[in-house]
Amino acid sequence: MKIRPLHDRVIVKRIEAERTTASGIVIPDSAGEKPDQGEVIAVGPGKFLDNGEVRRVDLKVGDRVLFGKYAGQTVKVDGQEVLVMREEDILGVVEA
Amino acid sequence: MKIRPLHDRVIVKRIEAERTTASGIVIPDSAGEKPDQGEVIAVGPGKFLDNGEVRRVDLKVGDRVLFGKYAGQTVKVDGQEVLVMREEDILGVVEA
Amino acid sequence: MKIRPLHDRVIVKRIEAERTTASGIVIPDSAGEKPDQGEVIAVGPGKFLDNGEVRRVDLKVGDRVLFGKYAGQTVKVDGQEVLVMREEDILGVVEA
Amino acid sequence: MKIRPLHDRVIVKRIEAERTTASGIVIPDSAGEKPDQGEVIAVGPGKFLDNGEVRRVDLKVGDRVLFGKYAGQTVKVDGQEVLVMREEDILGVVEA
Amino acid sequence: MKIRPLHDRVIVKRIEAERTTASGIVIPDSAGEKPDQGEVIAVGPGKFLDNGEVRRVDLKVGDRVLFGKYAGQTVKVDGQEVLVMREEDILGVVEA
Amino acid sequence: MKIRPLHDRVIVKRIEAERTTASGIVIPDSAGEKPDQGEVIAVGPGKFLDNGEVRRVDLKVGDRVLFGKYAGQTVKVDGQEVLVMREEDILGVVEA
Amino acid sequence: MKIRPLHDRVIVKRIEAERTTASGIVIPDSAGEKPDQGEVIAVGPGKFLDNGEVRRVDLKVGDRVLFGKYAGQTVKVDGQEVLVMREEDILGVVEA
Repeated sequence: MKIRPLHDRVIVKRIEAERTTASGIVIPDSAGEKPDQGEVIAVGPGKFLDNGEVRRVDLKVGDRVLFGKYAGQTVKVDGQEVLVMREEDILGVVEA
Repeated sequence: MKIRPLHDRVIVKRIEAERTTASGIVIPDSAGEKPDQGEVIAVGPGKFLDNGEVRRVDLKVGDRVLFGKYAGQTVKVDGQEVLVMREEDILGVVEA
Repeated sequence: MKIRPLHDRVIVKRIEAERTTASGIVIPDSAGEKPDQGEVIAVGPGKFLDNGEVRRVDLKVGDRVLFGKYAGQTVKVDGQEVLVMREEDILGVVEA
Repeated sequence: MKIRPLHDRVIVKRIEAERTTASGIVIPDSAGEKPDQGEVIAVGPGKFLDNGEVRRVDLKVGDRVLFGKYAGQTVKVDGQEVLVMREEDILGVVEA
Repeated sequence: MKIRPLHDRVIVKRIEAERTTASGIVIPDSAGEKPDQGEVIAVGPGKFLDNGEVRRVDLKVGDRVLFGKYAGQTVKVDGQEVLVMREEDILGVVEA
Repeated sequence: MKIRPLHDRVIVKRIEAERTTASGIVIPDSAGEKPDQGEVIAVGPGKFLDNGEVRRVDLKVGDRVLFGKYAGQTVKVDGQEVLVMREEDILGVVEA
Repeated sequence: MKIRPLHDRVIVKRIEAERTTASGIVIPDSAGEKPDQGEVIAVGPGKFLDNGEVRRVDLKVGDRVLFGKYAGQTVKVDGQEVLVMREEDILGVVEA
């Protein structure tokens, strides 16, 4: 199953952030107010402007993005949870 | 009885989502915050922009769509409940 | 007495919805959150856009319409209650 | 004393609505949520649009109008209370 | 000391309203929800529209105006209290 | 240290208002709802309009301005508190 | 790891403000309502206007900026906390 987002929405697969202590032990990040990371898996055609034009979403499939913890709505696709959110909710793109 | 939606409204027949356990038992999805799925059964002419133009709705009859649990208003047509919602409330189109 | 609605307002005469049980007994619909139906009895000239143009209301006298239970304001005309609402409040037109 | 309303404001003299019972006894309407009626006694030049143009108010002095009970602000002119409201607050014009 | 209002603001000197009883005794108006009157003593250059133009304020110094009781902010100029408000807050101009 | 305000922001150095009694004793103004005065010490380039143009701020360094008590945000520059506010928050310019 | 901000967002590395007492002892500033300072480490392409154009952000990497204490969202990049905020949240640029 695939989802085609409408307008300026994107679909993002959340990537669990981890934190490594000095001794190398990985502990999950519990601070609820930190943004989350994810991978863009689908991008809508763009924002439909009131002058009749479409402004393309400034993201592409595969982009690793940062977004607020409460951004988007969770959708289950083939048993896997993904997030549908607006381009507006994306804070930035993580570059390797 | 048929309903012709105005402007950018669409009429959606809800499809009950199901969840199958490992043993194959189907249990209804009880998590209230997950989006719902439905089939588009009628599409309005489009959004009437303030510059006098009409922007066609980016959906067609038969599309299987995702929408938030609280989207739209329930209308009973010939004893069957359907939802009237705005294109804006549709998160995406499910592609087979 | 007749009322001429201003701008994109329409006047609607409510039609009481009924529900027939399997045995044919008609019981009034008590679910408060279902939209109501009515007949359009007057239509304003249209929405006055900020660019100076008027966008005609996409409804005509005689249309049977669906609207939310709390849409519009009740006005008594010649002892009969009617609703004055905006085109925006109309969910769709019921086609026979 | 006369008041010249600014922009899209109008001045309305309220007309007390009455209700006649089957036996002909007139009883005042006590239902607080019904719109009121009034006569337009002054009309502003129109709404000043952001493109620099003025959109004339679609009302004239002498029009009998319907408006919501809480529309406008009461002003006392020569000992008589009138209402200053926006064209937007007028639901419709009562035609004889 | 003089104040030059910015944009579409005007400066208004409040005029205390009075009420004369049948017997001619003047009693101050205590009804808190009635609009107040005042004299315009300064007028800003106009509203700066988003298209870069300026829309002149439709008032002039000396105009006697009506405004809501809670309109504007009180400023003390040379020991005298005046009100700084927007043209938008002026309900109308009292004509003699 | 100097601050260059962005867009339509201005930096204002508050001037403490004083009140002189009939006998000449100066007492500080305690009424919290009176606007404050200040001197403009920096002016941003102007408001960036959505049509791509910039509308210059209608103020200059040295202007003595009136503003609401809760306007702006306090910033400490070289140990001295100043206010960063929008042109919008300035009620008027005091002319000597 | 680097973050590329979208639209008119910027990434800011907070600079801890300090206060030195007369005797030279540095004490941290505890007043929660004072703006914070930071250094711009990344700048988005600009605000996407509804007319299809892009308005460049009026900031550059290296600018020392003032912003409100609650501006932006904290993001951890390579173990270091930075803030993602909008150009709108920046009060001004500190010039040496």
